[in-house]
Amino acid sequence: MKPVIMISLLFACLICHAQVNNELNLMPVPAGIKSNGQHFFITQQFHVAITGKPNKRLYSEASRFIRRMGEKTGLFLDRQGFVTPSDNDLNAPLLINVNHEARLVLNEDESYYIEVGNMQVKVNAATDLGAIHALETLMQLVTADSNGYYFPGVIINDKPRFVWRGLLLDVALHFMPMDVIKRTLDGMCAVKLNVLHLHLCNDQGFRVESKTFPDLQRKASDGKYFTQENIRELVAYADQRGIRIVPEFVVPAHTTAVLTAYPQLASVKKPYTLQHYFGVFDPVLDPTDPKVYVFLDRLFTEMASLFPDQYFHIGGDENTGRDWDSTPRIRAYMKAKGIKTYMDLQTEFNKKLLPILKKNNKTMIGWDEILQPGVPKDVVIQSWRGKEAFYQSVRQGHAAILSNGYYIDLIQPTDVHYLNDPLPADTILTSEQVKLVLGGEATMWSEHVTPETVDSRVWPRTAAIAERLWSPRQVNDVTDMYRRLDIISRHLETIGLTHLSFRPPLLRRLANSYDTKALEILVDVIEPLKMYERNQGDTMYTVFSPYTKLADAATPDQPLPRSFGKLVSSYLQNQTPEMELAIAKQLLVWKNNHQQLLLIAEHSPILKEALPLSENLSLIAAAGLEAIEYIRQKNKANVYWLRERLLLIEKAKQQSGRCELQVVNPVEQLLRAAAVAEDTIEGKLAIN
Amino acid sequence: MKPVIMISLLFACLICHAQVNNELNLMPVPAGIKSNGQHFFITQQFHVAITGKPNKRLYSEASRFIRRMGEKTGLFLDRQGFVTPSDNDLNAPLLINVNHEARLVLNEDESYYIEVGNMQVKVNAATDLGAIHALETLMQLVTADSNGYYFPGVIINDKPRFVWRGLLLDVALHFMPMDVIKRTLDGMCAVKLNVLHLHLCNDQGFRVESKTFPDLQRKASDGKYFTQENIRELVAYADQRGIRIVPEFVVPAHTTAVLTAYPQLASVKKPYTLQHYFGVFDPVLDPTDPKVYVFLDRLFTEMASLFPDQYFHIGGDENTGRDWDSTPRIRAYMKAKGIKTYMDLQTEFNKKLLPILKKNNKTMIGWDEILQPGVPKDVVIQSWRGKEAFYQSVRQGHAAILSNGYYIDLIQPTDVHYLNDPLPADTILTSEQVKLVLGGEATMWSEHVTPETVDSRVWPRTAAIAERLWSPRQVNDVTDMYRRLDIISRHLETIGLTHLSFRPPLLRRLANSYDTKALEILVDVIEPLKMYERNQGDTMYTVFSPYTKLADAATPDQPLPRSFGKLVSSYLQNQTPEMELAIAKQLLVWKNNHQQLLLIAEHSPILKEALPLSENLSLIAAAGLEAIEYIRQKNKANVYWLRERLLLIEKAKQQSGRCELQVVNPVEQLLRAAAVAEDTIEGKLAIN
Repeated sequence: MKPVIMISLLFACLICHAQVNNELNLMPVPAGIKSNGQHFFITQQFHVAITGKPNKRLYSEASRFIRRMGEKTGLFLDRQGFVTPSDNDLNAPLLINVNHEARLVLNEDESYYIEVGNMQVKVNAATDLGAIHALETLMQLVTADSNGYYFPGVIINDKPRFVWRGLLLDVALHFMPMDVIKRTLDGMCAVKLNVLHLHLCNDQGFRVESKTFPDLQRKASDGKYFTQENIRELVAYADQRGIRIVPEFVVPAHTTAVLTAYPQLASVKKPYTLQHYFGVFDPVLDPTDPKVYVFLDRLFTEMASLFPDQYFHIGGDENTGRDWDSTPRIRAYMKAKGIKTYMDLQTEFNKKLLPILKKNNKTMIGWDEILQPGVPKDVVIQSWRGKEAFYQSVRQGHAAILSNGYYIDLIQPTDVHYLNDPLPADTILTSEQVKLVLGGEATMWSEHVTPETVDSRVWPRTAAIAERLWSPRQVNDVTDMYRRLDIISRHLETIGLTHLSFRPPLLRRLANSYDTKALEILVDVIEPLKMYERNQGDTMYTVFSPYTKLADAATPDQPLPRSFGKLVSSYLQNQTPEMELAIAKQLLVWKNNHQQLLLIAEHSPILKEALPLSENLSLIAAAGLEAIEYIRQKNKANVYWLRERLLLIEKAKQQSGRCELQVVNPVEQLLRAAAVAEDTIEGKLAIN
Repeated sequence: MKPVIMISLLFACLICHAQVNNELNLMPVPAGIKSNGQHFFITQQFHVAITGKPNKRLYSEASRFIRRMGEKTGLFLDRQGFVTPSDNDLNAPLLINVNHEARLVLNEDESYYIEVGNMQVKVNAATDLGAIHALETLMQLVTADSNGYYFPGVIINDKPRFVWRGLLLDVALHFMPMDVIKRTLDGMCAVKLNVLHLHLCNDQGFRVESKTFPDLQRKASDGKYFTQENIRELVAYADQRGIRIVPEFVVPAHTTAVLTAYPQLASVKKPYTLQHYFGVFDPVLDPTDPKVYVFLDRLFTEMASLFPDQYFHIGGDENTGRDWDSTPRIRAYMKAKGIKTYMDLQTEFNKKLLPILKKNNKTMIGWDEILQPGVPKDVVIQSWRGKEAFYQSVRQGHAAILSNGYYIDLIQPTDVHYLNDPLPADTILTSEQVKLVLGGEATMWSEHVTPETVDSRVWPRTAAIAERLWSPRQVNDVTDMYRRLDIISRHLETIGLTHLSFRPPLLRRLANSYDTKALEILVDVIEPLKMYERNQGDTMYTVFSPYTKLADAATPDQPLPRSFGKLVSSYLQNQTPEMELAIAKQLLVWKNNHQQLLLIAEHSPILKEALPLSENLSLIAAAGLEAIEYIRQKNKANVYWLRERLLLIEKAKQQSGRCELQVVNPVEQLLRAAAVAEDTIEGKLAIN
């Protein structure tokens, strides 16, 4: 097992290197930053003073900052308690000045200025929101050497590129309890996201207590919902972090839960039960029934009173239209009104919701399906199906939020999301249209996550999306993003996120033992199936399915396959003995791992689905070792050798346990580099 | 780093061995269990039916059981959803019958019967409480081999030895949020504890919302308290697990929080502020002031309505009497009433509380300080200061609960608690007195724990206390307890407890890196200072101090020092080359570890306090290696060699970072075995 340790030390050193060199590890990268050669030591006397027009939100966040500083440095600070209005000493080690109290609304000033000097750290901000961002930047700036902790001397002038920097958390498909939401808000604050979009109902459940329609939680939540007190607590918690909560109540489709409680509102009149599978289903509200609007008026008015934000999301996505089509009453209504398509009918439905939201001083948002002729211009469009809908929205004069490209539930690598710029340099939008682009939202749909695993799908990738939405367009170096992502990932863990720590217990459970080493080695190089592949074939998941299996321990965009791929690329360009050794050692670990995993699986049948992956890993690693030997000896393997081994490569691309191996491509590169190519003369001669 | 892996595999194999042999790993051990040679395979068709008089509590727990079974086995069970009254098929794979619905009160029947047959598993229980215990036993019974998961064929007849099997969780000194309480209840249910004693206020805060006296939470909680809705939710959650919640509101001392909100109730009239240090303080209610009793009447009546349990704990401990002594008004009152001592005054105070509790149909409990002449017999005494108070209580006719010996906050090894029997075989109590012994309570005082670390102080040791209170007295084999404790520890982790998983993130934070190996090696052999040593000397902790340091990562009763100690003992009795090699490899790991840790600490000043421990570990390990060599060569080291190395041993016993090394004694044994003893003739000759 020695080689794996050596190779991970090698990788660890690459990370250390950056720290030693005092490169800054901020994420998101500030709009403007320069070094001033100063150095501020963090000592036991460290404390915070605030001048200007501070408010409760800032005092509270400053107190949390002090607590975190103690936890990070281990210092028993002299002034550990709460920062209060009496803390206004102009010579305080950290002096914050704010000009006015923020309103937690779109377009509020979030800019800030930090100057780290030898004697004092100064923060200036227009509002407490800016000051809170500054505190998070300072937490990320804390650096250490053998003399202790310090802030490196920098001057930072920072402000966000987009005003809407969101994360959608779906608490409907799988419910997420209070502590998950709270730690998610902490993580969002750390990377300067400012909108938590809560997807609160769907076919699988209605997740907010309604006092007007209590059957929603009684009959249509499986007992899993937020009380109104819970919601008020979350809104207050988010406000404290400078984060708006935008609620989504999806209509007219995805309403099986609503119809389970109130079947009289359905297009097809029949009893409904909660949907426990995931997908797109036909149940839909009856847009021809005035009672539906009375219901929605009362429900939305009640819900609007719980969520102070100006925006109210009505969903609007994935209406199959089938239940409308199969209902003569509805077809007759359409005919009578001259409504041609189901989308037109939905637009009519949406228009009837507008006065309800207006009355409650809310602005409507919906998914891009609602962008139909006749939709009023003050409706905000959230694009999920593609960039085209996004461009259309702003061309038609709607404010727009981009989610297409930020679907973190689809297990894509971070760089895909990171390079997905709402407004690339070559944007085809006019400057007027550009103004309508509010920003973007990462979307965490919860079909395949539980409170145990959700963090590992949200973080750290969402930090890179946060950078895309905050930092200047020019900040787009993928290599540097990944370097910082590894560091921010640990930083996020210190505030209670579990995207790293969830795994060892899951592996102990899977292995039915403390001895999880072989399983760790495998899980480090597999990922769950991407896009919508996981919930297919013979594996149909429900709300109750076990999410404690191999695919749940596996996480997106793992560091090891990424760094191994890089190592192989470098090696194939420029073969050094060090790289050769590092690759060979890694391959040897993988080759030998299967025997160890077999031992574990013998008493843990849940791991049977891991064995094909493990065996394939072992086989391609063995082939890779042969390849390295050919390359080292500057021999070329013959075409037959290659053909046979490429069969292993093909086999290794097959999924098992809804997971796939992530290191097949670099091994294939090694094999091809080691052998005579079939399309060369030498290759052709060899075959003929 | 190879040796440490090998040695941990060696230890892991010892654990596997037990599983392979199909020894049962139940904790607590049932009162009666025998094998019947049957074997029940758990397949996709596994489901539960319930007959008799089931209730909501049982249906809900049975549904949770089904969900856990899916999570453990990875099976997509055909009937994954909820167990309902329609599930009453007499041929169901698991058939539960209950005779009547339990009342959640002391002395309710908790017995159960399990019969695992080839075709069916049958559970019979008088009440749903018994059935819930049976489900937890079944979860622990699940076994696996290469054919799949199964229940081994057993017949179990089980019932508890004591009716009061509790855990005190202190949410006053450090507040513990909802999710900590809930997962604690889950853990308690898994090991058949049935009372959660919540210590809800102290000098550091009052932790329950009062609508009668809202300044309690407004001014005296630092914002950390349970709303009344929270309390109702916790009570319901506990009820669901068959667990009673007993609230404690401590009076008349430990009331700085109450007096911060309502200083007019104090003996010494002055403004109070929340106490942020820990200890015993003078602020105390004024027992001479009728307003105090009016206040307590209204407060206790409000609190009594929130907690349905019959028992209500009024604390009563650690009254210094100083504020009574220094107040002429109170001294005059005592003189006038002929009250001689402060304890008598407190007894008078307690007597005035009794009608308040009686009116609310509550039985009073208090700490053993309240056992004074004249205390009515229906008051229950909880003994913390020693066994004598416990015996006195029952001799004087009080029902009694033992906590002395179960103070899990004091970081003592598990066996100390495990062997602390409330009624040992040679008990001096009469059979009438024995009837008054209700049981015991583990006590988790929270001076030095946070939500992040608390589980690691509670678990797994509390499982052994649970066994002491549930299983027959004769179940007291420490070796077998430890064998099962390692397994139950993993089992507890699967239900969400974090006593194992909290550590890696804490180490990553401490190391400021993913590379924590050297730190792990150290932390595996250190423990926080025991008893009341941690909060002394130059390290005075407050509520705000960082609990993210070495002593927080260290945990009580670590497995490695225990198994290393055993290995050394065995070796010194019977020296085999295998043992010699295992010891030497372990010593080599420790010897070499310090250099690695130095590298980490270079960029992590918070780790400086770890270095003396690490260096000492390295030095004594080197000495141990020399000793092994002497022993191996059957040479004796001379007295000077021993004297010099014993100096290292002495040094290695010193604390650093509020931690101490746990492997010093076995190494010392090796050294002494390797050398000539000074008190032998050979030794004396050598010196003279």
